[in-house]
Amino acid sequence: MNYSIGIDLGGTDIKAGLLCEDGSLSCRMVVSTQVDEGAKPIATRIAETARKIINTVESDSEKNKKIIGIGIGAPGLIIANSGIIHFSPNFPGWTDIPLLDYVSTELDDIDLPLYIDNDVNVMILGELHHGAGIGYENVIALTLGTGVGGGVVINRQVYHGSWNTAGELGHTIVQPNGRKCGCGNFGCLEAYAGAKGIIERTQQRIAEDMKTSLNPDSLTPKQIANAANDGDELAVQIYSETGRYIGIALTSIAHILNPQIAIIGGGIAAAGESLLFQHIRREFKQRTMDIPSNMEIVPAKLGNQAGLVGAAMLAY
Amino acid sequence: MNYSIGIDLGGTDIKAGLLCEDGSLSCRMVVSTQVDEGAKPIATRIAETARKIINTVESDSEKNKKIIGIGIGAPGLIIANSGIIHFSPNFPGWTDIPLLDYVSTELDDIDLPLYIDNDVNVMILGELHHGAGIGYENVIALTLGTGVGGGVVINRQVYHGSWNTAGELGHTIVQPNGRKCGCGNFGCLEAYAGAKGIIERTQQRIAEDMKTSLNPDSLTPKQIANAANDGDELAVQIYSETGRYIGIALTSIAHILNPQIAIIGGGIAAAGESLLFQHIRREFKQRTMDIPSNMEIVPAKLGNQAGLVGAAMLAY
Repeated sequence: MNYSIGIDLGGTDIKAGLLCEDGSLSCRMVVSTQVDEGAKPIATRIAETARKIINTVESDSEKNKKIIGIGIGAPGLIIANSGIIHFSPNFPGWTDIPLLDYVSTELDDIDLPLYIDNDVNVMILGELHHGAGIGYENVIALTLGTGVGGGVVINRQVYHGSWNTAGELGHTIVQPNGRKCGCGNFGCLEAYAGAKGIIERTQQRIAEDMKTSLNPDSLTPKQIANAANDGDELAVQIYSETGRYIGIALTSIAHILNPQIAIIGGGIAAAGESLLFQHIRREFKQRTMDIPSNMEIVPAKLGNQAGLVGAAMLAY
Repeated sequence: MNYSIGIDLGGTDIKAGLLCEDGSLSCRMVVSTQVDEGAKPIATRIAETARKIINTVESDSEKNKKIIGIGIGAPGLIIANSGIIHFSPNFPGWTDIPLLDYVSTELDDIDLPLYIDNDVNVMILGELHHGAGIGYENVIALTLGTGVGGGVVINRQVYHGSWNTAGELGHTIVQPNGRKCGCGNFGCLEAYAGAKGIIERTQQRIAEDMKTSLNPDSLTPKQIANAANDGDELAVQIYSETGRYIGIALTSIAHILNPQIAIIGGGIAAAGESLLFQHIRREFKQRTMDIPSNMEIVPAKLGNQAGLVGAAMLAY
């Protein structure tokens, strides 16, 4: 069987694992990223982690495991084909860091190809091969978290666009004179369906004297979802509106790209069918033309494993 | 030199021409479509027109002209790879018409491959190879006419999507609770930047007592552009707003696809730089993130030749 190593580089932790071609993960380990030490020590830690997994495999009694490569997923704008982190919000001060070169230098005794892509592209790659995207050619994905990430797959390849910024689906405009987005624009999907947008929209309604069980000073999307499940009317409304904004963005995207399926993951998507997905689908169906409206809208399947699985899939 | 035959099938006329690989058109001819007679007689007329061009080339004193194929552009939803017109607003009652088969039967003594695609995809193909898109890999195009058509080119190939409906850029949402669009949705770009949208927005303002030299009962986008060029304030506003709506749509599209260039054609684009394009660019630049905002926004170059040139390019 073929195996590959996946590294999920985050601002807090470096997670790693060994992916079998059947989709199963093993040898999982976590080390602290220690962002303050800078890129080269982090590259060293990534290399050490990969080396530990390689050693584990080599010492394994089953000798038929073949490792074919190492893939890294990282947040930010990644120039995938040259292995460079152009910019990353989780690594302040990093500009055009040739991370793959650094890791490669540390592993120059080991003859394995190295790959990198951004965390959302990696998530979509995981879902494409071992999750909700199995069997589909043209796929889009949204990750609803602090921000709203996105990815575009065309003919089973992640599409990077002209300058590695394709798939910024969170910056589809859903309300042109709407809420200010972190990107500087107004009315992006992220400004409504990201954690900050959800929390601030809730706070605003509470300030407008809408009745609720929620405490405006300590809100998370999860608390709001819990309140909605307990019947809190404001919380229910906030999630149904979130669904409608996502549906609006998906209409534009379906008209532009005509994908077969939209995979929606991230912590906020955990709100599930009745709070969120039914509202996404209803808005999308109402707004989208006959044929592209056949796009399926489904939750991601791999959860927090998608980062590791997808990173490892870069090697395939 | 290689040549190909382009056919521009419209509801009124069938236009045809011979495209040289250097981009020059010759042998142009026009016959009446006569929609009422149905698909088979129209296929016969297309075949006869193509045959006339072939005969002209064969009787030509220069014997080194090689015709490599015939391409047809037609409005509507075209299943390009099977040669079927699924649906076309200009051909009432046509559903799943195998037009290429019909034409092919008429030309079965001639050994030339036949191709078909929709008029907007064909226009973008013309611009890509012989117009504003020369040298670009990833291109989007908008045609601003009665409707707002669109097309997407990825790696110099027209992208058709999963079910042949990719590139419906006119149905990018620019105002979710906005004007009703012909597609049934609300706030599509087409509802603002298509001819009907421009005329109705102007009429509405006149009804609101906005001063103007325009007569609300006989308006065309061209008249409004002329009035704007003569300094009519309402007309100037209508075009600058049109530009802003196009800019909003282009922001979403640039974040989703990260193209290098947007080519904008069609009669309404003739309003030009000061009335229209500067407003598109300003809105786009203000709203779009740093890297994707490097997308160029340019007018189409081929004008009403794009249909013929692009149809003929299908054969390449």
